[in-house]
Amino acid sequence: MGNGQREDIQHAFGRVREGSLAIAAPLSGEDCCAQSMPDTSPVKWHLAHTTWFFETFVLEPHEAGFAPFHPAFRVLFNSYYNGIGAKHPRPQRGLLTRPSLHEVLDYRADVDRRVVQLAARSTDPAIVALIELGLQHEQQHQELMLTDLKHLLAQNPMFPAYSAQDMEQDMAQDLHQDLRKDPDAALAPGAPAWIEFDGGLAEIGFNGRGFCFDHELPRHSTYIAPFELASRLVTNGEYRAFIDAGGYRDPALWLAEGWDRVATGELLHPLYWLVDEAGNWSEFTLHGVQALNPDLPVTHLSLFEADAYARWCGVRLPTESEWEFAARQAALAEGALHPAAANGDGLQQMFGACWQWTSSSYAPYPGYAPAPGVIGEYNGKFMVNQYVLRGSSCATPDGHARASYRNFFPAGARWQFSGIRLAR
Amino acid sequence: MGNGQREDIQHAFGRVREGSLAIAAPLSGEDCCAQSMPDTSPVKWHLAHTTWFFETFVLEPHEAGFAPFHPAFRVLFNSYYNGIGAKHPRPQRGLLTRPSLHEVLDYRADVDRRVVQLAARSTDPAIVALIELGLQHEQQHQELMLTDLKHLLAQNPMFPAYSAQDMEQDMAQDLHQDLRKDPDAALAPGAPAWIEFDGGLAEIGFNGRGFCFDHELPRHSTYIAPFELASRLVTNGEYRAFIDAGGYRDPALWLAEGWDRVATGELLHPLYWLVDEAGNWSEFTLHGVQALNPDLPVTHLSLFEADAYARWCGVRLPTESEWEFAARQAALAEGALHPAAANGDGLQQMFGACWQWTSSSYAPYPGYAPAPGVIGEYNGKFMVNQYVLRGSSCATPDGHARASYRNFFPAGARWQFSGIRLAR
Amino acid sequence: MGNGQREDIQHAFGRVREGSLAIAAPLSGEDCCAQSMPDTSPVKWHLAHTTWFFETFVLEPHEAGFAPFHPAFRVLFNSYYNGIGAKHPRPQRGLLTRPSLHEVLDYRADVDRRVVQLAARSTDPAIVALIELGLQHEQQHQELMLTDLKHLLAQNPMFPAYSAQDMEQDMAQDLHQDLRKDPDAALAPGAPAWIEFDGGLAEIGFNGRGFCFDHELPRHSTYIAPFELASRLVTNGEYRAFIDAGGYRDPALWLAEGWDRVATGELLHPLYWLVDEAGNWSEFTLHGVQALNPDLPVTHLSLFEADAYARWCGVRLPTESEWEFAARQAALAEGALHPAAANGDGLQQMFGACWQWTSSSYAPYPGYAPAPGVIGEYNGKFMVNQYVLRGSSCATPDGHARASYRNFFPAGARWQFSGIRLAR
Amino acid sequence: MGNGQREDIQHAFGRVREGSLAIAAPLSGEDCCAQSMPDTSPVKWHLAHTTWFFETFVLEPHEAGFAPFHPAFRVLFNSYYNGIGAKHPRPQRGLLTRPSLHEVLDYRADVDRRVVQLAARSTDPAIVALIELGLQHEQQHQELMLTDLKHLLAQNPMFPAYSAQDMEQDMAQDLHQDLRKDPDAALAPGAPAWIEFDGGLAEIGFNGRGFCFDHELPRHSTYIAPFELASRLVTNGEYRAFIDAGGYRDPALWLAEGWDRVATGELLHPLYWLVDEAGNWSEFTLHGVQALNPDLPVTHLSLFEADAYARWCGVRLPTESEWEFAARQAALAEGALHPAAANGDGLQQMFGACWQWTSSSYAPYPGYAPAPGVIGEYNGKFMVNQYVLRGSSCATPDGHARASYRNFFPAGARWQFSGIRLAR
Repeated sequence: MGNGQREDIQHAFGRVREGSLAIAAPLSGEDCCAQSMPDTSPVKWHLAHTTWFFETFVLEPHEAGFAPFHPAFRVLFNSYYNGIGAKHPRPQRGLLTRPSLHEVLDYRADVDRRVVQLAARSTDPAIVALIELGLQHEQQHQELMLTDLKHLLAQNPMFPAYSAQDMEQDMAQDLHQDLRKDPDAALAPGAPAWIEFDGGLAEIGFNGRGFCFDHELPRHSTYIAPFELASRLVTNGEYRAFIDAGGYRDPALWLAEGWDRVATGELLHPLYWLVDEAGNWSEFTLHGVQALNPDLPVTHLSLFEADAYARWCGVRLPTESEWEFAARQAALAEGALHPAAANGDGLQQMFGACWQWTSSSYAPYPGYAPAPGVIGEYNGKFMVNQYVLRGSSCATPDGHARASYRNFFPAGARWQFSGIRLAR
Repeated sequence: MGNGQREDIQHAFGRVREGSLAIAAPLSGEDCCAQSMPDTSPVKWHLAHTTWFFETFVLEPHEAGFAPFHPAFRVLFNSYYNGIGAKHPRPQRGLLTRPSLHEVLDYRADVDRRVVQLAARSTDPAIVALIELGLQHEQQHQELMLTDLKHLLAQNPMFPAYSAQDMEQDMAQDLHQDLRKDPDAALAPGAPAWIEFDGGLAEIGFNGRGFCFDHELPRHSTYIAPFELASRLVTNGEYRAFIDAGGYRDPALWLAEGWDRVATGELLHPLYWLVDEAGNWSEFTLHGVQALNPDLPVTHLSLFEADAYARWCGVRLPTESEWEFAARQAALAEGALHPAAANGDGLQQMFGACWQWTSSSYAPYPGYAPAPGVIGEYNGKFMVNQYVLRGSSCATPDGHARASYRNFFPAGARWQFSGIRLAR
Repeated sequence: MGNGQREDIQHAFGRVREGSLAIAAPLSGEDCCAQSMPDTSPVKWHLAHTTWFFETFVLEPHEAGFAPFHPAFRVLFNSYYNGIGAKHPRPQRGLLTRPSLHEVLDYRADVDRRVVQLAARSTDPAIVALIELGLQHEQQHQELMLTDLKHLLAQNPMFPAYSAQDMEQDMAQDLHQDLRKDPDAALAPGAPAWIEFDGGLAEIGFNGRGFCFDHELPRHSTYIAPFELASRLVTNGEYRAFIDAGGYRDPALWLAEGWDRVATGELLHPLYWLVDEAGNWSEFTLHGVQALNPDLPVTHLSLFEADAYARWCGVRLPTESEWEFAARQAALAEGALHPAAANGDGLQQMFGACWQWTSSSYAPYPGYAPAPGVIGEYNGKFMVNQYVLRGSSCATPDGHARASYRNFFPAGARWQFSGIRLAR
Repeated sequence: MGNGQREDIQHAFGRVREGSLAIAAPLSGEDCCAQSMPDTSPVKWHLAHTTWFFETFVLEPHEAGFAPFHPAFRVLFNSYYNGIGAKHPRPQRGLLTRPSLHEVLDYRADVDRRVVQLAARSTDPAIVALIELGLQHEQQHQELMLTDLKHLLAQNPMFPAYSAQDMEQDMAQDLHQDLRKDPDAALAPGAPAWIEFDGGLAEIGFNGRGFCFDHELPRHSTYIAPFELASRLVTNGEYRAFIDAGGYRDPALWLAEGWDRVATGELLHPLYWLVDEAGNWSEFTLHGVQALNPDLPVTHLSLFEADAYARWCGVRLPTESEWEFAARQAALAEGALHPAAANGDGLQQMFGACWQWTSSSYAPYPGYAPAPGVIGEYNGKFMVNQYVLRGSSCATPDGHARASYRNFFPAGARWQFSGIRLAR
């Protein structure tokens, strides 16, 4: 391993690890400890689990004279790796008032110091690869820290903001450089254009340099019929027209399972929308409650809602192959705490605003093989009853997005920054 | 419409409608009324609902001076057609002790008489198409009558048989011509062979003459990489080796959601397998409890179990495209009350033994459009969180199977005759 | 044992056993098989379980060369006697389509014949006592057959009647001699009077000749302060005034657990009341749906509703001691399928209309000891989280009621003929 | 109101309010925020709710120019007073990361200051009575703070201690003066003696000077048959003998509902007992995990377990009348974090060790009337499906116990310091 590569990873390590601390910086120990539903995790748990990942997969096999920071943490902060052994039950993560946030920060500092030492001395490319994987893993959790926290704060009837102006000034500059950019400043978007693509026998899957997850491979041939994509995401204003037109009252628009959820009252409008008695809509954001801006992309939708909206428009959602085929020249975007409006020509908002539901279930590519060993539990075992989202969101850390990236959630999940890209 | 086609449909109508009665013939009113879980329905309900289908979609729009047999039946026997209106709640179908089985048989006779009259007089091809759809629909329910009844009888600690020898003699000959064939008579199957297929850019979807469901269309191009299929289904003996080897104790073999179900005790072995204290395995069948025959195909498995077994073998399940590509020359088979052993050379048991789980989620073909109107609720609205099974089973009525047929169930469903075809 | 006593029990045995058959006579096998909630049981199950009681507790220990009618019935028809062994799970009683109703009637006939033989030959008073207990037990189940069936029929959106006029003519005369009496014929009741009682140190518990259950003993001293009882039960008209006055909307009237049930929509009005869009009230009865008669006693109420109504009136429910103290001179009444209106002077409707909720939890009398052996599981083990109802209902078999009788159900139970007697 | 009385209440106010802070003093914000089940509440919530009680019932009606500390707190910290209006849902109290612990402490300080001002100026005895009620209310919550916290810490697989030696030194001296007393120092208790009581027509209910809750009134006559009470509570050693003898495997010992809970695994042993693979028993306490001391009273039992144990001994639990009749001369005891062993002659441990389950359901005394207005929601509306516990526990604040005190919990509750006093 050359010195240059070693320095790159050391630099990245410092930058990503500090990014997680920056997200937690405005929060109290209480904010970091609570868990609002089994699908989400406390911020403190994310801080500890990402550290556990480095301790378990980098230090334990490679550090001479390895001893765990705390023996109980092996179980407490294991997420789902059966190969590692027992796990603390996921729905009870919010009951771990001990270790305290302070102790978890000590845990982070200790593991950071040891990983840096190991990386400085080692010439083993396997170690670099594991650290790289750990950083990509941590970036995924950084997005979850924000979406899980948003869900927690939304349960509080006082609807507290995560980020007011002065909070944000404390945040690390290199995480989200435009945190203070006004998301409402964009011009109102016009009607979306339909961008045409020829399709044909295409190669799908990761083909670049650098890192990718195992499930982006192998690159393989797929036949894609000609198709069109909307030039931008669906907006709040457009989605509100769907609501006003009775979209949530017409079963003909919905998948049967979606309609069941409408009938029980689970689905009434996007997750964080609020309506007062006078019919005025607002939206809970990480900046607090704000009047609904019709020009921003609609977000926090289930696949059921995205699909029903598309059907109402007489079109459909893209497949993940179509999306990837189209995305190869799309521009990346920088993070924020809420998606910004479209602004420009051509194919926009493929990245950096909202994840985009596709109609593709999450499945292995032909010839897919998970990584050997425990690390192989990363993706493959989730390939059932989940659907692929493509692109990235405002909460995705800078540098983490790419055209071949496959995000996946159950069709009913709404607490991610998920939106709608139409296709036909 | 020519007289010949009209006569064909009239003949088919009589044959299929009698087939449902033949299935119910050995059963008491009590047997036909009970419902053992929300996913299943009582035999009486199937008898009524298939009649409701003809009454609602054939007679109501086309019979002069139409009046319903009983106004309440419109709600009682609507399955899931929101376009028709209210539905009796599915989990409460077993509480409908009134109308009695006798009244439902009167309902059938009345609607049959009226459909036959209408078909004899009409020259409208739309009517023939609706009757054809109704018969295909009824054949689907004939299979469900058997699988739902099997589930009900399996809840009884006395494990009563549906069919002893003399019961079967009462059954209509044209439904299942080999009901009295001994399923154990086949020779023990040797190791399965791997049959090679070239794949390439293939046309998938219905291309024949006659009837198909909307979701088998449009026929479209798909790229298929070269693959191999096992020549026959996995047997009870092979699956028992998986159990004995600890297959249900190793999380590395399972999809995460499947492992959760193993951990809660929901998945321990195929649905109807029984084991006594001495470790002897037997199997509840529609003929009653029988010693486990190692040569018969294993059946009543979830997708999770099929997938885990394939992973244990180091191979995988086929996609539905692969399956259909391979199935085009496969032989059809006649029905029975339990799957028979493989017997012969080449690709066997594609039809007539067990439905075969594929790794493909149930999704629309490119360009799919459901039929207009209420009939369009038939398939499309279920295209989420379900997986495709291909082929047919021993319980599928004769004449109902074809290579492009797409069956679909949730990954955890086990009460169908579902089995495993391996691919690699 | 004298011949007279032996003849009495033989006569009673024939009369009670025929009474159960009379209740089932108008019903189909389907009607007798279904179970509408875990708290209720199918009529067929009641017919079999009451027979199982005689087979298990009378024949098995006392018949020479005893052999069971069917070995599986020991488990299938055991209700809750842990001392006997395994039980079929209560919520699955409705899935027992086998044995058929016909086989259960054969079971009854066989056991009846053997009990009669045994009783004719035996001089053992323990056998007479067990038969007497079995008959009292069967009378309890006769009432449950009617209330469980009523609950089942009420789930059917067609609201079928159990008993039209000609059905009733088939019923045994000696069970319910006034089945054909018009329950609406009574004059409208005036305002209830308050009947005064002095109380004092009173003896409570069974003191008569003949049979009583163990929990009516020992007779013991209790101090009762002076109190008053309403002369009759609360009527539908009076209860409707409570509804119209917002009784179900004012939390101040409700026990906290009752209010929780109001808030979830479980409690809206008495169980079988129906209201159409025009605000007209009707009531489902065993005679079918009938316009709400304001003069009949309100019935099918939970303790929560009875308590809230009493609080709205500024009074309270009686304790069971008060009720028993007052009931000693009250007249018994004959059965019917629906409670009749009050008609006369003094303390009325203590028996034969509706069971009357008391404020007393079901608890052992001082010095209570259950019967030794398995029979001791009859009452004592249910003495927690249940409340005592006193009196009897229209569905109680003739000869089964007495002043010391203690019925008991959870506070939320509503499918019995339960009503309100006010106290202060 | 005299100056003396005014000074007394002012002194009591300061002492009780500081007591709550002392309990919270060793805890972090995280510890104070989490909620481990719907039945328990976070310590922070207790701190706020007891303050809300003074703000709502003392300041709001009586302070000139009253303005709420924070308008949202009226809803957030209302427990169950429907008369006050909306309530934050109880199961979500642990999600209130805002207001922070710091803000809640500010809230306490503000309300304290204003109550002290009001009390200093006012001559209204109604205000003194309300403050007195608020202090008694707060003392009840002080006990819950400890029991709820214990439940929370017990969910943590690291089993952290609430109180190590140095923590305790920070606690206010006047709350629990013997916190550092070694609970194991007592001599091993010998066999309990049976203390005889004559009973007769007794007066039950509060008869002293000073404060009592409404449900301790009216004092009324009850007839009590002669009875005996065990001289001390059942010990861990005695209860372990019950376990070793198969007490949890014999249905004949259990109430039916208790046996159901045994069968599902909910009841296996006292709530916080732990057993290692070698069969060594230990117990989680607020001091951490400790080896099971056979001489300490067994605690954290449901009524089902207490009742089964008594039945195993051939005796029973006392009624609440019996208990109160016996308790009138019993000595009070001071608090601790775990119950101490019996030590002395005569009737011991009536107070200060464990609450003692009685067989009495929680019901109104004859002639009971709740306080008028919202305060009347304090006790009366819970009088169903709860059972009375008498005495007090180690966690009961000094000065809060008396012979007429009625505590009540559902029969399955185990997280209180509940134990067993036998009677016969």
